[in-house]
Amino acid sequence: MSTKVVKSIREAIALTGLRDGMTVSFHHHLRNGDYVLNMVMEQIADLGIRDLTVNASSLFDAHQPLADHIRNHVVTGVLTDYMAAGLGREISRGLLERPVEFRTHGGRPSDIASGRTPVDVAFIAAPSADPMGNCSGKYGKSACGSLGYAAADAMYAKKVVVITDGLVPYPLLDWSIPEIYVDYVVEVEAIGNPAGIVSGTTRITRDPVGLVMASYAARVIEHSGLLEEGFSFQTGAGGASLAAASFLKDIMLSKGVKGSFGLGGITGYMVDMLRAGCFQSLLDVQCFDLQAVESLRTDPRHQEISALHYASPTMRSAVVDSLDVVILGATEIDTDFNVNVHTDSNGYIMGGSGGHSDTAAGAKLAMIIAPMFRARLPIVTDRVTCVSTPGRDIDVLVTQGGIAVNPKNGALAQRLRDAGLPVLDIHELKAKAEAITGTPKALPKGDRVVAEVISRDGGVLDRICAVPEL
Amino acid sequence: MSTKVVKSIREAIALTGLRDGMTVSFHHHLRNGDYVLNMVMEQIADLGIRDLTVNASSLFDAHQPLADHIRNHVVTGVLTDYMAAGLGREISRGLLERPVEFRTHGGRPSDIASGRTPVDVAFIAAPSADPMGNCSGKYGKSACGSLGYAAADAMYAKKVVVITDGLVPYPLLDWSIPEIYVDYVVEVEAIGNPAGIVSGTTRITRDPVGLVMASYAARVIEHSGLLEEGFSFQTGAGGASLAAASFLKDIMLSKGVKGSFGLGGITGYMVDMLRAGCFQSLLDVQCFDLQAVESLRTDPRHQEISALHYASPTMRSAVVDSLDVVILGATEIDTDFNVNVHTDSNGYIMGGSGGHSDTAAGAKLAMIIAPMFRARLPIVTDRVTCVSTPGRDIDVLVTQGGIAVNPKNGALAQRLRDAGLPVLDIHELKAKAEAITGTPKALPKGDRVVAEVISRDGGVLDRICAVPEL
Repeated sequence: MSTKVVKSIREAIALTGLRDGMTVSFHHHLRNGDYVLNMVMEQIADLGIRDLTVNASSLFDAHQPLADHIRNHVVTGVLTDYMAAGLGREISRGLLERPVEFRTHGGRPSDIASGRTPVDVAFIAAPSADPMGNCSGKYGKSACGSLGYAAADAMYAKKVVVITDGLVPYPLLDWSIPEIYVDYVVEVEAIGNPAGIVSGTTRITRDPVGLVMASYAARVIEHSGLLEEGFSFQTGAGGASLAAASFLKDIMLSKGVKGSFGLGGITGYMVDMLRAGCFQSLLDVQCFDLQAVESLRTDPRHQEISALHYASPTMRSAVVDSLDVVILGATEIDTDFNVNVHTDSNGYIMGGSGGHSDTAAGAKLAMIIAPMFRARLPIVTDRVTCVSTPGRDIDVLVTQGGIAVNPKNGALAQRLRDAGLPVLDIHELKAKAEAITGTPKALPKGDRVVAEVISRDGGVLDRICAVPEL
Repeated sequence: MSTKVVKSIREAIALTGLRDGMTVSFHHHLRNGDYVLNMVMEQIADLGIRDLTVNASSLFDAHQPLADHIRNHVVTGVLTDYMAAGLGREISRGLLERPVEFRTHGGRPSDIASGRTPVDVAFIAAPSADPMGNCSGKYGKSACGSLGYAAADAMYAKKVVVITDGLVPYPLLDWSIPEIYVDYVVEVEAIGNPAGIVSGTTRITRDPVGLVMASYAARVIEHSGLLEEGFSFQTGAGGASLAAASFLKDIMLSKGVKGSFGLGGITGYMVDMLRAGCFQSLLDVQCFDLQAVESLRTDPRHQEISALHYASPTMRSAVVDSLDVVILGATEIDTDFNVNVHTDSNGYIMGGSGGHSDTAAGAKLAMIIAPMFRARLPIVTDRVTCVSTPGRDIDVLVTQGGIAVNPKNGALAQRLRDAGLPVLDIHELKAKAEAITGTPKALPKGDRVVAEVISRDGGVLDRICAVPEL
């Protein structure tokens, strides 16, 4: 029987010919439960390989050991679309000499495909795989659903290693990644901690502020002129976004609107909307909860898409180009509607664009929902600390204290006013918040660049500086 | 709403920037019912574009108008994996100045992917597509099932045009080819004649000679040592091959052998074997009949594969590498077990390798079944007119008059003898046939090369010469 199975991760690394200075890649479908990045990096470090670039679609707190590999110069470059607060804080304090390169979920696979950011060895964490490397995230004890972010890595990396805790006889059916791209397969005890891989369930907010924002958000969509047959929609997994989806579902059902597709990271709430007939399909680059995993596995209307298909700016098209409405978050938004999702109020890295910029650029209506202030800091500022998504791609900001429409979209503002929604100029919204919180002091800005935000078109959109020691 | 739909094939051709000297590609899932190649070439000719290379995965009698485009120098190069007798006869008479390049179903996508045979514009005949180009062969009035041979064309061509007679709202689900590769979509009245696209049903032979061969073939497999749990199998759509599959099915059921997968061009007989439990899955690069199309559409155990996944010699692996047994045909086989499937007994082109060489190279047991003679010409010769598949990849020849085992496989010969099967030296088999038919005269060999047979490893395996005028 043909097989690509090798004994250990260590053996696979050796067989790939990985050497100092190369680039390794990882995907993040196992989210905060992922063991694979750490297992691989530990072996790489132990083999004495140094000066690597890690290209990871996202980095979570589970990947904190990466900080040590950076300290030890095993890793000297980091490319990612999202970085959780733990590692973010260390990067913001200057841990890494070269700036981190932040991309979007569409820009990352685009740059891998074009060879701008080539990958030498891709490590694919696969909940299910056969001995020739056909693999899927839908099956197995560590099932995470879609493997959409791993597709470009598999297609374009010079060597590809599949690491699985669900080895099945050949051929695995319903593969996400076919054997044609895979060099080696390694079986391990566990690729992740099920508790961290997906949330058991994602939950709607019960916070009254969140519910007000969600209600406004749903009504903005209702009156946007887009909520008609064929409507398409993406939202995040945050509590207020989910509440907005829930309100939207009620509106769609009561009006009998038959949408076309729900997109994105998929939650059980989107699955409910599919089943209720709000959408004819779900296009899924990442599952956020167990209900989404189960639906992707069993409902043919719920389909996996690659990150290239989801959001690449350089393929002939991507699904985001056909998207009507997206609901997105923000840590800050400025009076030009530029949005920050990279840094917190102290300037520390604690996020990243993910699909934020991609969907904002593609959607006909890109909506930010955020509270007017957080911990006595207004959400609206004169200038965001970091431009994650440019203001030209944002149409509307929804807060509990009112709705600000980007002036480029005057028709929308009029529609919302006509519907009786509290539309304010964004400067008024800023003043309204500051009347409660006071005007915050400007953040001291460091001068050493610790990260670059690469826009979808490949330019540097912004630079994130080290947070000065206080 | 975003759309890539343009008004006509002519407009799409103009938009692609197609110019003199470029290469256009076509796939053959609509088989002898295909309208698309002719429709496209007619527009190209009418636009005055000349000196094109046509790279078609197969050419059928329906594509006879191509001869006129060659005469008019619209087409000056032909690359294909199979050519039916009508066009074959004209090529063999010297119609085309440059030799036709014959590849295999695995070699063709491999050379497209590597850039050895780049495609400027791929035209994809799609029974179902959405306005952004997501497309499938499973749905629509012209449903042909798998679009496996079109996948590499779509992925690697500089421009991709989808031509459909089944335009559906975005997003088409269950796509074979995603929108990320597609530039333009054209809606037409009909992409093919349903009567020619797939046979209504494929049929088992009733010819007594065919049934004897089929029975031997099944018993060879039974005693090959390969018919055990996990067994995998491919066979063609010829009557004797289907009869062999039918006998094999009975053996597998009576012995309780649970195979893993059936591969290839898929017929209703393979679907029956799947449903009977002989296999756990079917991997389908092409549907030969309506039952296969229906099964691919509805049975999740029946999955589409691309030609790269099926048979590419240069990807990290292909399914043929995991194949146990393949049953193949031959117009001639020589005493070194070289097989000819390109030319007829007069030396005229009337076929091609298709997946013949790919599966023979990959399978553990590659079996030829053929009658001892056809029209008083013995099947075994001293030297085949054309080497389509090298003898080193062929294990056994089954005829109604006996079974010849390649001497490289002595263990198999012994097993078959032990099972009481009539194993003969291939020279004996040749003599036995010639005792009935007499020794045929050698074909006069022309000296102008009209076609080259490119092997899976990229070298020239053989050259086909013009048939001298008599």
